[in-house]
Amino acid sequence: MKANTLEWIGGVDGCLRLLDQRKLPGEEVYIECESTGQLYEAILTLAVRGAPAIGAAAGFGVVLACREAAAEDITTVEEFITFVGNKARYLESSRPTAVNLSWALQRVLKRAEEFIAEISLDSKGHSKDSIYALRETILDEARQIADEDARMCEAIGMYGCDLIKPCCAVLTHCNAGSLATAGEGTALAVMYEAKKRGTDFKVYVDETRPLLQGARLTAWELNRAGIEAVLLCDNAAGMLMKQGRVDLIITGADRIAANGDTANKVGTYSLSVLAARHGIPFYIAAPTSTFDMKIDSGQQIPIEQRDQSEVKEFEGVKTAPSDVAAYNPAFDVTNARDITAIITEKGLIEKPDKEKIAALLK
Amino acid sequence: MKANTLEWIGGVDGCLRLLDQRKLPGEEVYIECESTGQLYEAILTLAVRGAPAIGAAAGFGVVLACREAAAEDITTVEEFITFVGNKARYLESSRPTAVNLSWALQRVLKRAEEFIAEISLDSKGHSKDSIYALRETILDEARQIADEDARMCEAIGMYGCDLIKPCCAVLTHCNAGSLATAGEGTALAVMYEAKKRGTDFKVYVDETRPLLQGARLTAWELNRAGIEAVLLCDNAAGMLMKQGRVDLIITGADRIAANGDTANKVGTYSLSVLAARHGIPFYIAAPTSTFDMKIDSGQQIPIEQRDQSEVKEFEGVKTAPSDVAAYNPAFDVTNARDITAIITEKGLIEKPDKEKIAALLK
Repeated sequence: MKANTLEWIGGVDGCLRLLDQRKLPGEEVYIECESTGQLYEAILTLAVRGAPAIGAAAGFGVVLACREAAAEDITTVEEFITFVGNKARYLESSRPTAVNLSWALQRVLKRAEEFIAEISLDSKGHSKDSIYALRETILDEARQIADEDARMCEAIGMYGCDLIKPCCAVLTHCNAGSLATAGEGTALAVMYEAKKRGTDFKVYVDETRPLLQGARLTAWELNRAGIEAVLLCDNAAGMLMKQGRVDLIITGADRIAANGDTANKVGTYSLSVLAARHGIPFYIAAPTSTFDMKIDSGQQIPIEQRDQSEVKEFEGVKTAPSDVAAYNPAFDVTNARDITAIITEKGLIEKPDKEKIAALLK
Repeated sequence: MKANTLEWIGGVDGCLRLLDQRKLPGEEVYIECESTGQLYEAILTLAVRGAPAIGAAAGFGVVLACREAAAEDITTVEEFITFVGNKARYLESSRPTAVNLSWALQRVLKRAEEFIAEISLDSKGHSKDSIYALRETILDEARQIADEDARMCEAIGMYGCDLIKPCCAVLTHCNAGSLATAGEGTALAVMYEAKKRGTDFKVYVDETRPLLQGARLTAWELNRAGIEAVLLCDNAAGMLMKQGRVDLIITGADRIAANGDTANKVGTYSLSVLAARHGIPFYIAAPTSTFDMKIDSGQQIPIEQRDQSEVKEFEGVKTAPSDVAAYNPAFDVTNARDITAIITEKGLIEKPDKEKIAALLK
């Protein structure tokens, strides 16, 4: 099902191949990032988006930094890793709020430092050979991040797929699919797995204003996977629920507090309230890395405010008077009590609360 | 406050001046309709929209039909009115679902027939003079429709304005303003009247996908009236309510059943459920002509399905895969039990039900 939208091509001198999400659904264009500069631009301008996908891309970004270091007049492992570390900090600044970005960069650099500590003890290694071995170690770690992400998606799919019964209708919001991860996604992984098992169902896709990730990305993904998708304005979801046409809702998550309150794309909260009114099960699909146990409840989750132009313009066309203010939060917070279960790679947390979450994460 | 967005210019040989709503908010362009053909096109392509505004425009459409009849070789009052009646049927076909359109045409034609019946009794009248007098009668009736609509808006404003307390925040959806009526609107008339009385408040405006009437029209109107407007994606309304930032909601209505269930622009139902969850008063502002006493409940209100392209394209730019289906209902139905009150030109109907509605309409 996974369309290889994020893939490392070749060995230590290879490149990162990314599907350009800015061009979807109109064009399927791939970018080959051969430098950290190109990758920085790709992350900044949302050619690659979705926290897990950005993390995986950043891991390979360190491999690109190594390519650049190898082209310099660097002879010692220490100088080499200093150069690479600086490039990693540069990549980190592309989207400072995406937690997976810094997490992945730090993880790869830590592995590199461990490797350097090991070879220092073993004084036989030539610098040139050591540098090459270091580059292979870094590529290996970056690949591991992407592989782990893909396995996490699979596990979420396995744990969640039985929630989708034959002939039912699922509603989803934004894009929590393969485009947002290095695997098959989170919310969409559940659907892909149900499809693999032969379950017949349809998916209502909220278009997800203002950036239309539902229309542009989720509809595109489901279409490719041969899953029946019906697109709607976010506005129309309540009416569908009232008519009894939605059997369950599954969305992804951007951050989950220790008590289960969940930040996700703006509009998710409204869906959760509508689901509660109509007795429709409401599920969050997210890896355990999404839990922020330092935060007690959703009230402490900071909400990113994005540019007003996303609401007031479309493709450069003005859709509102230029002197009117616009409120454009990227996320909202769904109350834990309105969540039927959180689907993680370690299993379901039904009626999530602090104790159940802490127990699963142990 | 009313921007004269719909105005008859001159006498029986005059024209109907309309603000072209298709061009808003980018350009403020007026159209001068001098023929029924031009008016047909204006209604069909939404240059003029909003049920009361379409009704008022149609009334003047009969005056335009008279201009065309006068240019023909017609000598008797009977032939004249037959010609005009045919043109009226042509106008009626421009948007068959807008109830005010046929209502206004029928009202003007009925007045014309009454006039003809009167002059037939009085055999002294020349045909030429009679035709001119008929044309004046028709113009008078069309003006009355527009004037009554404007007075209805004023009365709604008067009855509703005290609901807006100083420093409060109102949320509205779609456009129920002067652009939708021949006066100051319904939901927006309440705000205009509160503003006139010196109340300081702000209005959160749902952009209202797919056609963005909130962003394009309501934000424009409020801006002109000097009322603080903050635009948001429909998605973000739930979060605002959760944060305690919305004090009341006022929307218009397209049709109200005998029990108070109310059809309005899609998304209104979701707002009503969110308002109920947060204990926020939810008001409908609509003239008594919006009530359809032949319909017992909202379940019987037919819901217009509009073209999928409204969801899948914007200004000709594809926003979703072309082979994905889209669900695009124009309206949804809010339950009477979630409506705090209906604001009409005859007063408020609090906690609306069948008995209270019937009593007010008597």
